Amino acid sequence: MSTSGERAAFLTNPRSERVRSVVSLRRGSVRSRRSRFLVEGPHAVRELLRYAGAHVVDLYLTDEAASEHPDLAQWARQEDASVYRCTDQVLEVMSDAQHPQGTVAVARRIDVSVQEALNAVGEGFAVVLSNVRDPGNAGTVIRGADAFGAAAVLVSGDSVDLYNPKVIRSTVGSAFHLPISVGAPVEQILDVARRRGIDLLAADGSGPTSLRDADLAGPHAWVLGNEAWGLPADVMAGCDDRVAVPIVGHAESLNLAMAATVCMHASAAARLGS
Amino acid sequence: MSTSGERAAFLTNPRSERVRSVVSLRRGSVRSRRSRFLVEGPHAVRELLRYAGAHVVDLYLTDEAASEHPDLAQWARQEDASVYRCTDQVLEVMSDAQHPQGTVAVARRIDVSVQEALNAVGEGFAVVLSNVRDPGNAGTVIRGADAFGAAAVLVSGDSVDLYNPKVIRSTVGSAFHLPISVGAPVEQILDVARRRGIDLLAADGSGPTSLRDADLAGPHAWVLGNEAWGLPADVMAGCDDRVAVPIVGHAESLNLAMAATVCMHASAAARLGS
Repeated sequence: MSTSGERAAFLTNPRSERVRSVVSLRRGSVRSRRSRFLVEGPHAVRELLRYAGAHVVDLYLTDEAASEHPDLAQWARQEDASVYRCTDQVLEVMSDAQHPQGTVAVARRIDVSVQEALNAVGEGFAVVLSNVRDPGNAGTVIRGADAFGAAAVLVSGDSVDLYNPKVIRSTVGSAFHLPISVGAPVEQILDVARRRGIDLLAADGSGPTSLRDADLAGPHAWVLGNEAWGLPADVMAGCDDRVAVPIVGHAESLNLAMAATVCMHASAAARLGS
Repeated sequence: MSTSGERAAFLTNPRSERVRSVVSLRRGSVRSRRSRFLVEGPHAVRELLRYAGAHVVDLYLTDEAASEHPDLAQWARQEDASVYRCTDQVLEVMSDAQHPQGTVAVARRIDVSVQEALNAVGEGFAVVLSNVRDPGNAGTVIRGADAFGAAAVLVSGDSVDLYNPKVIRSTVGSAFHLPISVGAPVEQILDVARRRGIDLLAADGSGPTSLRDADLAGPHAWVLGNEAWGLPADVMAGCDDRVAVPIVGHAESLNLAMAATVCMHASAAARLGS
């Protein structure tokens, strides 16, 4: 016999207040007012539970997802989150994804201060996103930062919102793996980094230093700019070096995520002494 | 006084047969029957004219695009293409892009045979796409192949169509910079490559060889698989090695375009002796 605490409430009405409240978290203004965001899909929710379980507020599961992933509801309850079963239709309304996977969580924001993010750098490296606007790009860079062992990511206030469901989705769980600051002006981020002795490297396709000559031995941060126009002159001027990924073919440039990937991989290789 | 040959016909009816014929090239079956495809935007059209000018059949320009890019119409006429002016509305109907840029060209297909593509490899490297389905991924990999000096790209028959407007658009002109074969089964591609002495390297996140230990000195080809499930076992078995990009953080994997980017960059670095 299950107690009432273990029996999940069952949501059937896609127009209920609760469902509408979840859906409203797709809007940045609501997320920022309520300090909550959405996490979708069993993999991302599991990573959230594993790395930031105390932040989970509510978990919504279809019957199918609940029976395929029995660990999720149990784990969420251990974290004092509320667990709700819901119909496929309700889940579909809640989900921002093209292919909803039966699982949506509402979580408290996970970002840290600029100071805390940069404290994590130690002898390693961080990634600064300045005016990066595409959710897929931001998410891909965060996923790469995680894969290549970056200590932290700092998302400037003029970049896309970390909590945009498309950003969270394209990090594939990596958003929960390393400290991320959001919302600070890039000037403030660079200022704090500079005072911490972190070398600021602007990723700039027309920069004077080739990636193969860049000094990646000490603590450093990759500063990545807008997809179309890169970094503004004053931000470039505030960096210690402007580093270009060498291009050997006829392509004029790499896209932001590719350039970032190559730079972060070089930082990882430098740390591993290859 | 301009002669009639220099005066462009002006298209005002978005429902005309000509406009519908251009629009129909968004469909793969029509492209393959007519051996024609669409190229959109002034930058991509300029690259098409520069690298495959003889393939241009028709060029459509709004008044604004024609006056901003006067070289395009002139260049297209030199290549014996027909040039048409059209209203913004007509161009918008023709364009597959979210932000049409006033320029659409119809071109004859540009792909080469598997043999011709692999003949270009010499001491360099090629990239094989096997069952890659996302247009943005395919386009990004082709852009990277160009930037990192790949000799050729070979797109298997079960991958997304090279001539899908989204693929062409995301190559940002790189589709015209290097020989690309399309449509052959991956087994045939690998077979021809093997007989040419080209080392076949499967990009595989769980492969036994780390990228830093991979032998990239001789002629080789990166074999890239599907976004979700990678390469099938028999294709893997037909490769000489399975190479993984080392991951140091908590991320489970890199996405296809990121892994390809790092691998191709390593090939470029090996050739440049860094």
